[in-house]
Amino acid sequence: MNIRFYNARILTMEESRDIFQGELWVDGNTISYCGTLENIPDVEKNTPFDREIDLQGNLIIPGFKNAHTHSAMTFLRSYADDMPLSDWLNKQIFPMEAKLTEDDIYTLSKLGIMEYLTSGITANFDMYVNSDAIAHASVDTGFRTVIVSGLNNFVHSLEGMEDCYNKYNHFHPLISYQLGFHAEYTTNESLLKGVADLAHKYQAPVFTHNSETLSEVNDCKSRTGMTPTAYLDSLGVFDYGGGGYHCVYFHENDIGIFKEKGMSVITNPASNLKLASGIAPIKRYLDEGINLAIGTDGPASNNCLDMFREMFLVTGLAKVTEKDASAVDAIEVLKAATLGGAKAMGLNNSMTLSKGNFADLTVINLHKPNMQPLNHLVKNIVYSGSKDNIYLTMVNGKILYENGEFFIGEDAEDIYEKCNKIINRMK
Amino acid sequence: MNIRFYNARILTMEESRDIFQGELWVDGNTISYCGTLENIPDVEKNTPFDREIDLQGNLIIPGFKNAHTHSAMTFLRSYADDMPLSDWLNKQIFPMEAKLTEDDIYTLSKLGIMEYLTSGITANFDMYVNSDAIAHASVDTGFRTVIVSGLNNFVHSLEGMEDCYNKYNHFHPLISYQLGFHAEYTTNESLLKGVADLAHKYQAPVFTHNSETLSEVNDCKSRTGMTPTAYLDSLGVFDYGGGGYHCVYFHENDIGIFKEKGMSVITNPASNLKLASGIAPIKRYLDEGINLAIGTDGPASNNCLDMFREMFLVTGLAKVTEKDASAVDAIEVLKAATLGGAKAMGLNNSMTLSKGNFADLTVINLHKPNMQPLNHLVKNIVYSGSKDNIYLTMVNGKILYENGEFFIGEDAEDIYEKCNKIINRMK
Repeated sequence: MNIRFYNARILTMEESRDIFQGELWVDGNTISYCGTLENIPDVEKNTPFDREIDLQGNLIIPGFKNAHTHSAMTFLRSYADDMPLSDWLNKQIFPMEAKLTEDDIYTLSKLGIMEYLTSGITANFDMYVNSDAIAHASVDTGFRTVIVSGLNNFVHSLEGMEDCYNKYNHFHPLISYQLGFHAEYTTNESLLKGVADLAHKYQAPVFTHNSETLSEVNDCKSRTGMTPTAYLDSLGVFDYGGGGYHCVYFHENDIGIFKEKGMSVITNPASNLKLASGIAPIKRYLDEGINLAIGTDGPASNNCLDMFREMFLVTGLAKVTEKDASAVDAIEVLKAATLGGAKAMGLNNSMTLSKGNFADLTVINLHKPNMQPLNHLVKNIVYSGSKDNIYLTMVNGKILYENGEFFIGEDAEDIYEKCNKIINRMK
Repeated sequence: MNIRFYNARILTMEESRDIFQGELWVDGNTISYCGTLENIPDVEKNTPFDREIDLQGNLIIPGFKNAHTHSAMTFLRSYADDMPLSDWLNKQIFPMEAKLTEDDIYTLSKLGIMEYLTSGITANFDMYVNSDAIAHASVDTGFRTVIVSGLNNFVHSLEGMEDCYNKYNHFHPLISYQLGFHAEYTTNESLLKGVADLAHKYQAPVFTHNSETLSEVNDCKSRTGMTPTAYLDSLGVFDYGGGGYHCVYFHENDIGIFKEKGMSVITNPASNLKLASGIAPIKRYLDEGINLAIGTDGPASNNCLDMFREMFLVTGLAKVTEKDASAVDAIEVLKAATLGGAKAMGLNNSMTLSKGNFADLTVINLHKPNMQPLNHLVKNIVYSGSKDNIYLTMVNGKILYENGEFFIGEDAEDIYEKCNKIINRMK
């Protein structure tokens, strides 16, 4: 389908380009033009379109990338709150997860995807059991997903991860797969060495939960004499880069390893508050030039899958902990939520709104009181934006959410009903 | 107008009542029935209605009370960010404010009110210059406002405040007025003694910015030998109660004074993060039984006028600073955002959804992915709710916002245009 957005403001997130008024054209799944009305080449002026959308001055930006989540955990939203992380995981999450079927994970992932769309998110980095259910949920809705292995001592195997790596990197244009494991504290050394071998074999980055809590770091030091980052690095896990989810408690040496190996910090501030884990030193990471990405974490811990909440927290928490109201400004946060996420996830064609890139984008409705006056649109997005401002979300050239309605191949109410049935069956 | 909401879930916030399925009837500006279908008295079964609204299972709750704001500062949203509080106030805010006309304040206040409505807020506690502009903006839109004096060394006078107190407490049913002053550090002792005299004369509570920053507290101690709370209390300012905005840096003795005098802490977590002021010890205040209310602060400091953001921050920041994921749970937060605010603001008839109370309410749209599944509705509101869930906001029996549209006596786009003109004129 060919779609023309006109009367738009556009923020491409290219270094060289400020916000401008113009048009964005979509041909199939890619951007075929992004520029001013005046600069449209003569030869293209009569391009026919299947649909032309007057954006009435609203702002197109690249879609947000949710760089850490467990989408299918939607079933436990508001089910296991107000308890410490270890109790939450062992007494509530694990026993309930054991009851999930593949069908459940498929439907619950769809609910997560719906919420991403309402928040302008066009891709997720999803760690959960049953890659097949995740992949099909994304393909069937039209959403872009990077699956990451959640290998640990209890589920999955190295062989299974390698099979998935080969399968899901050639499964569908919307799906890719990254090597990973749940966390140092749930994965034994023999498995970790196997992960390192696969990283070497495929020259691939590796992702894991890292230094989310102080006790995790201290326990690892007691066992190995090293921080989780240093220990994993000593095994060769990060020889081809990768990244860490959370990264709340980093030592100087950990920062050095992330910097040296070109790794990404993927921060999850709402989850870190709600589970009382701590506040990550984001300014420090940015000062060191480490790539920053932002994730919501799963809906059982956050419980909201909302990039606006996360963006405000990234800057607000940096400001208050640094005692510096100028720390981590709006543009740095917006970069992390878009470009930083895409970089961490290996989505090199979903970054800027440039000709030839995938049409993964969202439209910010400026005709809302929280976007007025139009003093500074990037600041408006980061400091006062909300889901209420998402007018439209397009993934891979297809509009999946527009004006409050979903176009994902299944009725929204049917998905809600199925999700309620799943959790009610388990109770 | 008589309005019937049916097929509703209802959370009245009365101590004795859980969420139930039923109806809420509005007669003029008050609630005439709130209960199950079965319990409607026979004599009332044929009540005629001007409008009957099928809520499709959505949830009615009391409107949120924004217990601290400076609404008209909308013109400076995204204009003066990323700088310390003293520079922000002296170099950006004060010089721009000097250029405001009464008409400007009227229009800019309306923009703030529009955003409150999108967030389910039905009343604000507004401190700003020009009470007349504020009062007219609220009356003309149909919004409920408690104006509080922002007396200080530079604007207003004691006589002016007393005149306003008498005028705006008998001006219009939507408007009331509370004694107050900007802050200890902007108001000299002679004025403060005058405030105490008025508090005694009218047996009235007094409200002010209090202990927002560490330097404010330390400066006051250098000058007076006391914390702001102790110093103000020593002058008799709080002899009839009142409250403090922010209350980030309290000594034990300050907590004792607030407790003894039955005062309210009005917390503004987003503003405190963004201006790098600090994190208020909310759990401590609640443990002491102090009334807690929540405010957005003004749009130049926050920059969002969104009770959902504030509610998540109240609990999230308490959890992380107390290192206790069970601290300040969802129901405590929802109470603060509704009942606690109403109590602080003296809105005794806008608290619970009880027969005879003002119909100040909002409808939470549960047919959205972030509200599914329906595991626990209060937790859903506090942990995953957003402006996107506000289907309808009613103030004083009148629907002012419904399904994204405003019914406030003036076209939304006209207000946006005027607000942009105001700030562009000043630049």
